[in-house]
Amino acid sequence: MPVFTPITGDRIASVKAHTGAQAAAAVDGAHRAFLAWRNVPAPRRGELVRLLGEELRAAKADLGALVSLEMGKIRQEALGEVQEMIDICDFAVGLSRQLYGLTIASERPGHAMRETWHPMGVCAVISAFNFPVAVWAWNAALALVCGNSVVWKPSEKTPLTALAVQRLCDRALARFGDAPDDLLQVVIGGAAIGEVLSDHERVAIMSATGSTRMGRAVSERLARRFARPILELGGNAAMIVAPSADLELAVRAIAFSAIGTSGQRCTTLRRLIAHREVYDRLVTRLKAVIDAVAIGDPLDEATYMGPLFEKASFDAMQGALAQAVAEGGTVYGGERVEGDRYPDAFYVRPALVEMPGQTAIVGRETFAPILYAMRYDRFEEAIALQNDVPQGLSSCIFTNDVREAEEFLSAAGSDCGIANVNIGPSGAEIGGAFGGEKETGGGRESGSDAWKGYMRRQTSTINYSRSLPLAQGIRFDL
Amino acid sequence: MPVFTPITGDRIASVKAHTGAQAAAAVDGAHRAFLAWRNVPAPRRGELVRLLGEELRAAKADLGALVSLEMGKIRQEALGEVQEMIDICDFAVGLSRQLYGLTIASERPGHAMRETWHPMGVCAVISAFNFPVAVWAWNAALALVCGNSVVWKPSEKTPLTALAVQRLCDRALARFGDAPDDLLQVVIGGAAIGEVLSDHERVAIMSATGSTRMGRAVSERLARRFARPILELGGNAAMIVAPSADLELAVRAIAFSAIGTSGQRCTTLRRLIAHREVYDRLVTRLKAVIDAVAIGDPLDEATYMGPLFEKASFDAMQGALAQAVAEGGTVYGGERVEGDRYPDAFYVRPALVEMPGQTAIVGRETFAPILYAMRYDRFEEAIALQNDVPQGLSSCIFTNDVREAEEFLSAAGSDCGIANVNIGPSGAEIGGAFGGEKETGGGRESGSDAWKGYMRRQTSTINYSRSLPLAQGIRFDL
Amino acid sequence: MPVFTPITGDRIASVKAHTGAQAAAAVDGAHRAFLAWRNVPAPRRGELVRLLGEELRAAKADLGALVSLEMGKIRQEALGEVQEMIDICDFAVGLSRQLYGLTIASERPGHAMRETWHPMGVCAVISAFNFPVAVWAWNAALALVCGNSVVWKPSEKTPLTALAVQRLCDRALARFGDAPDDLLQVVIGGAAIGEVLSDHERVAIMSATGSTRMGRAVSERLARRFARPILELGGNAAMIVAPSADLELAVRAIAFSAIGTSGQRCTTLRRLIAHREVYDRLVTRLKAVIDAVAIGDPLDEATYMGPLFEKASFDAMQGALAQAVAEGGTVYGGERVEGDRYPDAFYVRPALVEMPGQTAIVGRETFAPILYAMRYDRFEEAIALQNDVPQGLSSCIFTNDVREAEEFLSAAGSDCGIANVNIGPSGAEIGGAFGGEKETGGGRESGSDAWKGYMRRQTSTINYSRSLPLAQGIRFDL
Amino acid sequence: MPVFTPITGDRIASVKAHTGAQAAAAVDGAHRAFLAWRNVPAPRRGELVRLLGEELRAAKADLGALVSLEMGKIRQEALGEVQEMIDICDFAVGLSRQLYGLTIASERPGHAMRETWHPMGVCAVISAFNFPVAVWAWNAALALVCGNSVVWKPSEKTPLTALAVQRLCDRALARFGDAPDDLLQVVIGGAAIGEVLSDHERVAIMSATGSTRMGRAVSERLARRFARPILELGGNAAMIVAPSADLELAVRAIAFSAIGTSGQRCTTLRRLIAHREVYDRLVTRLKAVIDAVAIGDPLDEATYMGPLFEKASFDAMQGALAQAVAEGGTVYGGERVEGDRYPDAFYVRPALVEMPGQTAIVGRETFAPILYAMRYDRFEEAIALQNDVPQGLSSCIFTNDVREAEEFLSAAGSDCGIANVNIGPSGAEIGGAFGGEKETGGGRESGSDAWKGYMRRQTSTINYSRSLPLAQGIRFDL
Repeated sequence: MPVFTPITGDRIASVKAHTGAQAAAAVDGAHRAFLAWRNVPAPRRGELVRLLGEELRAAKADLGALVSLEMGKIRQEALGEVQEMIDICDFAVGLSRQLYGLTIASERPGHAMRETWHPMGVCAVISAFNFPVAVWAWNAALALVCGNSVVWKPSEKTPLTALAVQRLCDRALARFGDAPDDLLQVVIGGAAIGEVLSDHERVAIMSATGSTRMGRAVSERLARRFARPILELGGNAAMIVAPSADLELAVRAIAFSAIGTSGQRCTTLRRLIAHREVYDRLVTRLKAVIDAVAIGDPLDEATYMGPLFEKASFDAMQGALAQAVAEGGTVYGGERVEGDRYPDAFYVRPALVEMPGQTAIVGRETFAPILYAMRYDRFEEAIALQNDVPQGLSSCIFTNDVREAEEFLSAAGSDCGIANVNIGPSGAEIGGAFGGEKETGGGRESGSDAWKGYMRRQTSTINYSRSLPLAQGIRFDL
Repeated sequence: MPVFTPITGDRIASVKAHTGAQAAAAVDGAHRAFLAWRNVPAPRRGELVRLLGEELRAAKADLGALVSLEMGKIRQEALGEVQEMIDICDFAVGLSRQLYGLTIASERPGHAMRETWHPMGVCAVISAFNFPVAVWAWNAALALVCGNSVVWKPSEKTPLTALAVQRLCDRALARFGDAPDDLLQVVIGGAAIGEVLSDHERVAIMSATGSTRMGRAVSERLARRFARPILELGGNAAMIVAPSADLELAVRAIAFSAIGTSGQRCTTLRRLIAHREVYDRLVTRLKAVIDAVAIGDPLDEATYMGPLFEKASFDAMQGALAQAVAEGGTVYGGERVEGDRYPDAFYVRPALVEMPGQTAIVGRETFAPILYAMRYDRFEEAIALQNDVPQGLSSCIFTNDVREAEEFLSAAGSDCGIANVNIGPSGAEIGGAFGGEKETGGGRESGSDAWKGYMRRQTSTINYSRSLPLAQGIRFDL
Repeated sequence: MPVFTPITGDRIASVKAHTGAQAAAAVDGAHRAFLAWRNVPAPRRGELVRLLGEELRAAKADLGALVSLEMGKIRQEALGEVQEMIDICDFAVGLSRQLYGLTIASERPGHAMRETWHPMGVCAVISAFNFPVAVWAWNAALALVCGNSVVWKPSEKTPLTALAVQRLCDRALARFGDAPDDLLQVVIGGAAIGEVLSDHERVAIMSATGSTRMGRAVSERLARRFARPILELGGNAAMIVAPSADLELAVRAIAFSAIGTSGQRCTTLRRLIAHREVYDRLVTRLKAVIDAVAIGDPLDEATYMGPLFEKASFDAMQGALAQAVAEGGTVYGGERVEGDRYPDAFYVRPALVEMPGQTAIVGRETFAPILYAMRYDRFEEAIALQNDVPQGLSSCIFTNDVREAEEFLSAAGSDCGIANVNIGPSGAEIGGAFGGEKETGGGRESGSDAWKGYMRRQTSTINYSRSLPLAQGIRFDL
Repeated sequence: MPVFTPITGDRIASVKAHTGAQAAAAVDGAHRAFLAWRNVPAPRRGELVRLLGEELRAAKADLGALVSLEMGKIRQEALGEVQEMIDICDFAVGLSRQLYGLTIASERPGHAMRETWHPMGVCAVISAFNFPVAVWAWNAALALVCGNSVVWKPSEKTPLTALAVQRLCDRALARFGDAPDDLLQVVIGGAAIGEVLSDHERVAIMSATGSTRMGRAVSERLARRFARPILELGGNAAMIVAPSADLELAVRAIAFSAIGTSGQRCTTLRRLIAHREVYDRLVTRLKAVIDAVAIGDPLDEATYMGPLFEKASFDAMQGALAQAVAEGGTVYGGERVEGDRYPDAFYVRPALVEMPGQTAIVGRETFAPILYAMRYDRFEEAIALQNDVPQGLSSCIFTNDVREAEEFLSAAGSDCGIANVNIGPSGAEIGGAFGGEKETGGGRESGSDAWKGYMRRQTSTINYSRSLPLAQGIRFDL
C-alpha cells in the first residue's frame, strides 16, 4: 500500500497490508498475551507504560515531525499530539496503583460486599488519519494498565506513524523485560480488516474513532455479539458568543479551533452562534484572520495551517461550500491556494460562511476548515441551535455572565459530552473524559474514570458467617 | 389480551394491548415530561421516589400476593421482590443528593475542569415475566432521580402487576403534587411494541431484561441509532463446591438458588461443579431435598416451590432433560406433579442431572429447575468449567480456603458480573451493581454507580483567566 | 436546672442535670451498645434512621414549635431546622448501603489490596443553643449508620428540645425492635459534663459545636489522648457584592443571612464588603429592611425576627456596637425593642454598622444581628478583606461576572469551608460537607464524605498466592 | 552537630544546626512560596514531582548506600526505601491530574453545588531516624502536587540523607525552571526546632512521625491553634498464626517483619499470637532463624540484619528483656554480638521472648528486635490479645480459613489501620493509606485519598437562577 504526504501529495513510502487471516491471528496472539498480562500486577503493568512515556519523551521531536509529514498538521500541533501521548502515559501510571473498586456495606451480618474491576481481554483500536498516534495512546495506555492486550488498526492512510510508535513500544518492551509476546500489535489495512476485528470473538473491546457511518457499522457488528464499543465518531462543535464575551479571546479561540489541523479535528469548531450585538464585529475580525493566516508547509515553524489531508477532503469541502451557498450562505475564503506549486496537495484558505439559519449542510460534519456563522437574539435560541444537530461531541460558550455560563453547563444547556466556557471546543486536556453523545457514539476515553471502559466489573458477596441469611429478608428453610 | 395464572392455568383477567402508535405517543409524552423533569432538582425528584417507597411499603402484602398469583412464585419470594423495590427506592433517595460528578485539576492556570452528570431523556424498560415488578423498580427509581422519564413495557404475560404498580405510582404522584404528566407510563404489548420503543428516536436509554435472543435484537436496533442499552440477558450460574466447603450451607444455598422461583431466575443455579471428594455426599443430600420439597400453591405459606410459568416452560424443560440424557446425563426428579389436579398448570419436581461433562445442553439456559452436576479434580479445572459457557451473569464458590476464595474472585477467576463466596448465585442485594458480561449483555443496574447508566457525562473546562493557554503546551498565536 | 423561653424570659420548665458519674456511666453504656451495634449490618442500621426520619416527619410541627419556644427562632426557621433533620435521615439511609471503601491494585502478584471503613465507638455530640436539634441530627444520623453509639450533651440552656428528640428516638427504637440498650442517650449538663465526655477514654469521636474558646479546650483534651475531634466553631461570614451583582437578590440574601435566627447562626452574615459603586445603594436598601422587619413573637407567622437568646447576648451586642463606634463605625439600628412588654426578653432591631475598615471588632464573632459594612475598590482587596479574619467557616460573593465568581472559588479565593455565589453564607443544604478551616476548627459534618469522620479506615493486603513477595521489590530470603 | 554511623559508631560528619529564628524564617519563606505555588496548575506541579522521581531513580544506589551508612539498615531495605520514594512520586504525578472534588446534586432549581480541594499552606514534616528519607517523600510528593510548600525537619541524628535528598530536589527544581524559592527546605535541629514548627502560625499542616510521646506534645500544640496534624506514632504489630496457616510462609514473614531494620520499624512485628497447635513448631523454627541470621555490616549484601541505631536503643532493648523476664518471660537470643570488633556500635541477635500472657512490657513499644510469643486457644481470644494494646498501627493474620480471615478484617476484628492476611505487618505498598488509630495518632499518608490531608475542602453553591430559594424549603420574604 502506497503512503503519501499531504504536504506535496508525493508518495513517500509503501507498506505491506495484512490479510484478514493475519489480523485474526494477531487477535489470537493478543488473547494469549492477555491471559498472561492480566495476572501481572497493575503497578508493574504501569511500569511498561512509564517506560513507553520515556521513549515518547525521547522521540518527541522526531515522532512529531513524522506526524506532520504523514498527516499534514503543523509542527506545534504535531508536538502537542505527542505530548498528549506522554500525558496519558503519566496519568495511566498513576492509575495503575488505583483501578479502584469498592467495598460496600452489606445488609447481611457476617457478609462483605465488594466491587472489583478486572481486565477484559483484547482491546482493538481503530484510529483515524487526523490523530494518527494520540488516539491510540489514549486507548493503549489505559488498556495496558487495565490488563488488556492491544491490537491497533491505524488508518490505512497513516501507517508510518503507527509503525514508528510500534518501534517505540518495542523499545519499552525490551527494557521492561518480561511482557508476554503479542501484547501490542499493529495491523495495517482498510475496512475489511476493521470488520475482521469487529467480528472476532476474542476482541472484547473495540475503540473506534472516525466517521459516524463507520461507527454505525462497527456498532451493529459489536452489538450482535455483545462486545463492548468505545465510539468516538462525528462532531459538529459550536461556539456561542454572548454580548459579554471577551471578543479578543473569542477570536483567538475561534482561530485555533476552526483552523487548527485544517479543520480536520472531530472537535473542530464548525458553527459560530453569535449574539446579534457582537456578530458583525466578530465576523469582521475573523475575515481578517482568514486573510492573514500563514498557510503552507506544516513543518515550517511559521505556518499556522497545513494542507488538507487528500483530494477527497478538498472535494468534500468544495461540495459543502456549494451546498451552503445554495442554502442561502455567503462564503468568505475557502479557495484553494498553492495549487500551482503542489498540484497533488490541497491547501485551502479557511472558509467563513454566513448562514441565514441552521440549514441541512450546517448539520453535517464536513471534515474541512469551514465555519458557519449564525446570529441569535435570545439565549435559549442559541442553546437550541447548539443542540439541534445530530452530533454531540463538543461545544463552548464565550460569556462573562455567570448565569449564561452555568445554564450552558446545566441539564438544560449543551447536550454535548464536552461543554467549555471561554475556551474553544477543541484541544482537551487528558485529565477529563473525552467523548460525546448522540451520533458521536457515547464512548469515553482518556481521563476521569474512562478506564472503566477497559475493564469488567465484578460484584461479590462473601459470607464469612455460619449461617445463610437471604437478601430482602426472604426466609427459605427447607 | 388474556391473562392467566400459572397456579391453575385459569384465565384471571384480560387487558387491552396498546397499538404501536399509542406506544410511540407514550414516548412523545414521556419526552415532554423529561424536558420539565430534568429541571426539577434531584433531591426533589428523590422525594417522588421516597413517596413511591411509602406506597410500596403500604401495599407490600397485596402486591406480593398479586405477584404470586400472576407469576407463580411463592409468597416469600414475592414479598422479597416487593422488598427489593422498597430497598431501591430508599437507595435512590440517598442518591438524589449525590449524583456525584468530579472537579478535576486542570493543567492550565486560571482554568477549572469539571465533570457533571445530566439527565438523558426517555428511559424505556422492557421487563420479563419472572421479576414482573422488581426489575422495573431497579430501573425506574434510578431513572427518576437521574431526571429521566420512564416508559415501561412489562411482559405481555404479566400486565396485572405492572398495572398495579402504575396505580401506586399514581398515588405517589398525586401526593408529590407537581410532577409533569406522562412521567411514568406503562404500555402493554408484545415484541412489536418492544420494537417501536427500540427504534423510537426519543428513547435515549433502553433497559431490556430477558432472553439473549431478545437482547441481541434490541442491541442491534439500539446500536444503529447509538442509543444506550442496559441489557440483562441470559444467565447460567454455577456453583463450585470445594473440599473445605461447609456442605450444610452449600445444600441450603443450592436448594434456594436452584429451586427458588422454580428455576426461573436469570441467576438460578444451573450448574453444580463439585469436587470429587464431596460430590457424592452432595448429590445424595440434594436428592433428599428434591424428594422433600413442598410443591404446590405458591400462596400457601408451606409451599417452597410453585408452578412453572406456562406450558412452554414445561415443554422446554422436558426437551432439555431428554437432550441431557442423550448427552450422557442421568436425571433425578424433573417429572410433572399435580397434573391431575391442574391440567392447565405445570408443577414439576426439580431435576438433578448428573452429567459426564459440560455438554451442549449444559451451556444453554433452560428456564426451569434443572441442576446439572459435574465433578472436578483440580481447582483450575473448576474455574475453567465455570467460565466455559456463553453467559456471564452469576457464579459462586463454596470453600473455606482463602486461596481458592480469592482466586475465584481474581482476574483469572470467575468471568461473571457476580461472583460470590459461600452464598448462592441468586438473590443479590440492591447495594451492588447487578449484571454480567458476555451474552448476559454487559449492562448494570441497581447499586454502586449503576446510576451513571441513566445519565450523560459532561466534561467542562472553564477559563476564568484573561488569556487562552492551550492544552499540551501548544502555542498558536495568530 | 431551670429552662427559660427567650420569647418572654419566663421559666418554662426545670430539668435535672446529670452528674459527672452519670455521664461517665452513659458513655460506658454507649460503649456496650457500640460493641453490639457495630455488628448490625449497616443497611439495617439505616432502617433505624429511616424510622427516626418518619417520627420526625410526623412530629415536625410540634418539634418546630418547641424549638421556637425554647430557642426563640421564628417558625419558618424552626421548621427548616426540623426539615434538616429529616433530610439528613434520608441521606444517611442511602449511605447505609454505601459506606464505600476501595479495592486497590496491588503491586504483588496473587495479592489483593482493600480499604474498608469500620465503626469507631462512642460518638459524643456537644451541641449549642442556636441549633438545638439539627446539629445533633447531622451527627447522629451519620454516626448511627456508621455503627457508632451516640451520647448527646445539648446546651444546658436548651434541654427540652433534646429531651423531645430523645422521645422520638425511643419511638423509632421501639419500632425497630432489637437495637442494643443505651445506643442513643442524652446527658444534661454544662461544661463539666463536657469535660467528662472529652476525657473519657471510651469516647472515640467528639463532635463539638460552639465557640472557639470552648472548641480549643475540647481540642486540646482530645489531642492528649488522640481522640478524634469534629469541631464546628466560630464563624464570621462575609459577603462581597460586586458591581455586576443582582442587588435585589443580594438584599434578600443579606436580610435572611444577617437577620435570620437574630444573627445567632455560626453562618450568620456579619461582614458586608461592597464595591464602592454599589455600596450606597445597598446600604440605603438595608436600612429600609431594618426599619421594616417584623420583630416579635417567633411563633407568630408574621414575625421575621425573634428575640435574642438571653441577656448575655444583648449585653455582648451592645458592647460590640460600642466598640465599633469607638473604632470609627456608624451604627444604624441595634436598639432594644419591646423592652416594656417583655422586661426579661431581649428583642432588638438589627444593626448595620458602617465601618471605615476591618477593625478589631469586625474580626470578632459577636453572636447577634450586627452587620459591618465596608467598601472596596479592587477585587483582590475584597478577597483579602474576606480572608483577613481568624475564622474560616462561610463566605459568599454576589456577582454576575464569571471571572470574579470563579476566582472567588479558586485556590486564591475565599479561604472558607463554604464559599457561595449569589446566595448567602447561611442555610446550607445537607448534601454538601459543612464546616470550615482556621478557628472554625476544621471539622466537617453532614453530606459528601463527612461520614468518614465517624469511621476508622482499614488498609488490608491479602496474600492468596503461595509465595511472599515484598513491596518495593525488596528481597529478604533467609 | 556530629553525625555518627551505627555501623561502627564512628563520627562521619558534622552538620550545622539551624536556630529557632532560622527555622521560623524558613517557614515564612515557605509561606511566600506557597502563595505562588498554589496558583501553579496541579499537573504542572506534578511535573516537578516527576522530575524528582527521575533524580531519585538515577541516584537510587547512592542514596540507598547513604541510608545504610547513616541509619544502619541493610542494603536491600535501604534500596526499598528509595524505591518507595520513587513509587510515591509516580503515584503523585498521576494524582496531579485528579485531586478530585465533587459536583453534587442541589435541592434548589438553578443551583449547582460543588466540592473543591484547595492547597493549604506550609506543610512541615518531622521525620524519624528509622525511615530517614521515605517518610519525607510520602509527605512531600503529595504536599507538592496538592499545592503546598514543605519544610522538613529530619531526625537530628540522620541529617546527611536529608541533605542528600535536598540536593536531588535542587536538581529537579533546576530542571523544572520556574518554581518559587523556598518551596522545599530542610531545617536541621532537635525538639526545640520541632516546637518552633508546631507553634508557627503559618504551618498549616504538620506531619510528625516518631514516638507517641513526641506525637502527644505535637498534637496538643497543634490543637491549640487548630492546625492540622498527620501523626504516625507508635506501633506494636501483632501476627496471629492460626492452625490452617502456611507455616513456612509465616516464618518467612515473621523473619522479615521482626528482624528487618533490626526491629526498628513502626510496623515491626513485636507480638506473635500463635494457636496452641502450631506454637511449638513455630517457636522452634524461629529459634533456628535467630541462630542463622547473618548479622553485620548492612552494606554487605550477605547481611540480613544490621546494627541497632545507637547505644540508647541497645539499653532500651536490654531493659525490656529484663522486664520481660521479671514478668515471666523466657528469652532466646537478644545478646550483643560483634561487641569486641565495634565497641561503639550495637549489634544484637534478635530476641524471641516466650510470654505467659500479654503483660505490661508487651504492651509497650520497644524499638528493637524483640518478638514476644504467646499462645491462644480460641480465635476470639487471639483478636482480643491483638487489640488489647494502646497502639493501633499494623496487624496481620496467617490463616487459610476464609471465616477467620474475613473476621479479622471485619468491624469486630483487628482495630489497626493496617490489617493483613498472609503477609507480615510491615512493608506496605504506597497505593494504600498508611497509618493507624489509638496511640498511633490517627493520621494517614501515602495512597488512597490520603492526599486530602494536605488540602482544604471547599463546599460551594452557585445560584444561577433569578430567584433565591432557601434550603429546607424555608420561606423568608421580607
